[in-house]
Amino acid sequence: MAKDGHKAFEQALLKRAETVAAVLRRLLDERPLAGEIARPQRLAAAMRHGVLNGGKRLRPFLVMESAALFEADGEAAARVAAALECVHCYSLIHDDLPAMDDDDLRRGQPTVHRAYDEATAILAGDALLTLAFDALADEATLLPAERRAALVVALARAAGIGGMAGGQMLDLQAAHERPNEAGIIRLQAMKTGALIRFACEAGAIVAGAPAADRERLGEFGSAIGLAFQLADDLLDLTSDVGTLGKATGKDAAAGKATLAALHGQEWARRQLDGLVAQARALLEPYGERGAMLANAAAFVASRSN
Amino acid sequence: MAKDGHKAFEQALLKRAETVAAVLRRLLDERPLAGEIARPQRLAAAMRHGVLNGGKRLRPFLVMESAALFEADGEAAARVAAALECVHCYSLIHDDLPAMDDDDLRRGQPTVHRAYDEATAILAGDALLTLAFDALADEATLLPAERRAALVVALARAAGIGGMAGGQMLDLQAAHERPNEAGIIRLQAMKTGALIRFACEAGAIVAGAPAADRERLGEFGSAIGLAFQLADDLLDLTSDVGTLGKATGKDAAAGKATLAALHGQEWARRQLDGLVAQARALLEPYGERGAMLANAAAFVASRSN
Repeated sequence: MAKDGHKAFEQALLKRAETVAAVLRRLLDERPLAGEIARPQRLAAAMRHGVLNGGKRLRPFLVMESAALFEADGEAAARVAAALECVHCYSLIHDDLPAMDDDDLRRGQPTVHRAYDEATAILAGDALLTLAFDALADEATLLPAERRAALVVALARAAGIGGMAGGQMLDLQAAHERPNEAGIIRLQAMKTGALIRFACEAGAIVAGAPAADRERLGEFGSAIGLAFQLADDLLDLTSDVGTLGKATGKDAAAGKATLAALHGQEWARRQLDGLVAQARALLEPYGERGAMLANAAAFVASRSN
Repeated sequence: MAKDGHKAFEQALLKRAETVAAVLRRLLDERPLAGEIARPQRLAAAMRHGVLNGGKRLRPFLVMESAALFEADGEAAARVAAALECVHCYSLIHDDLPAMDDDDLRRGQPTVHRAYDEATAILAGDALLTLAFDALADEATLLPAERRAALVVALARAAGIGGMAGGQMLDLQAAHERPNEAGIIRLQAMKTGALIRFACEAGAIVAGAPAADRERLGEFGSAIGLAFQLADDLLDLTSDVGTLGKATGKDAAAGKATLAALHGQEWARRQLDGLVAQARALLEPYGERGAMLANAAAFVASRSN
């Protein structure tokens, strides 16, 4: 991506992150909503700890930019973006638990179960996941009920047994079951790809765009989901030793094969270029309006550099 | 409840349980739905272990009977009932975890984390919660989108930080924070009451009944939620020693005060009678059609005998 595009992208990312953080703070307020009884202070604080932690908010950015492609309502898109971020953050809280990846730190801060305790972290994740569907379906998301319901179904399928949660299950099994290449691709498409794909599709759903646009944005999301994972694999490979094709990183240590480790860094970089080109091509029908999403694709792919 | 009413109720409960079990088996099938990538076999099996375990399906019964009050579509009601049962079962799976109540057995079977492992149990709960919202919002639940979205919001508020998950947080804190009577009432209304209230309200939402009916059914649900909890407290008090008003059960051992322990068994039994009478009175506008829900109220209250 050209330097100007990069700068414009980073500024847009920051601006979108502020917008979504404001919505998240409102959603995580301690005052109960209609139909709720009370919001226990400790649980609300643990949820905020897991969400309001200065993340880049890439997934919310993709929701808001894909909605903007179709000139959809920005407030509705921001609420959908916030709901998706709640799901992403719930998954991080649960993945960090001792029974899962057992991580003590995230973004330099104690993970939720370290800052609070395991039970509170489990409940904070559960309550964030629940809140996400509330936020999508609520009339306060100013969309026709048909779209709110469609968003619930699409997010549930991206996040549940057939998507992210199922991918985490496969990832836990991968350490001893050593999946083949097709297995690795499936695992990654589920664990990280599905939510990124949803982020891009969601804009089309918010806008009530034709099914063909939703499908196109979904394909765009899948391409950058793959790029995201490859860039992550490359980072893992190069952060320790950096020798071409040598699997020395954390994934290899955990017994987890990655495509970059299987095929080498050079192959991975070529793949990344191909995925960015593919993502750009998918945006062609949208002309200039697709520029920011094209920048996002380049940004995702460049994380390894 | 008269003996005839009791028998008719038990037969109806069994019949409804079979209907909802059939829907649950379909929801928990290993074939992925549209928009899902694949359903990992181990995770699907863990979810089925936590759900298809011969529960009485009281909450689903309440959904289906409250829907029947308004002659709502039975298939839609059964799907909503199954979704609610997924949420109930997810909460049991997570509550049983070592970091929470640390239970090895449920209904005489190993709990999910004992039959599988902790990570799988956490994911099974997460995926069940997610699936519940999918089932409610899906077009396959043959209801107008407005009602499907309303069901998602109502269930999310009953199950999330302002309902069940928040109640579990308060329950964990209760062992050392010793809530007063108002605190105990709030804790129980959130932890067990909110989902039972939702079960009764849900029928009115499925039927598209007027707001006044939804409110009335909600109050009915709150009354039997309270009765459910009092009966549970009484069981806890009487199962060990059985001396009037003496707190000898598991709750007391865990440092958890209950209303029955505070006020004694005689008080608790009088309260139960009052709640059943109140529940019956709320059903009066529905005449004969309310007979089965009235039986359900009596059944819930009689669990202590």
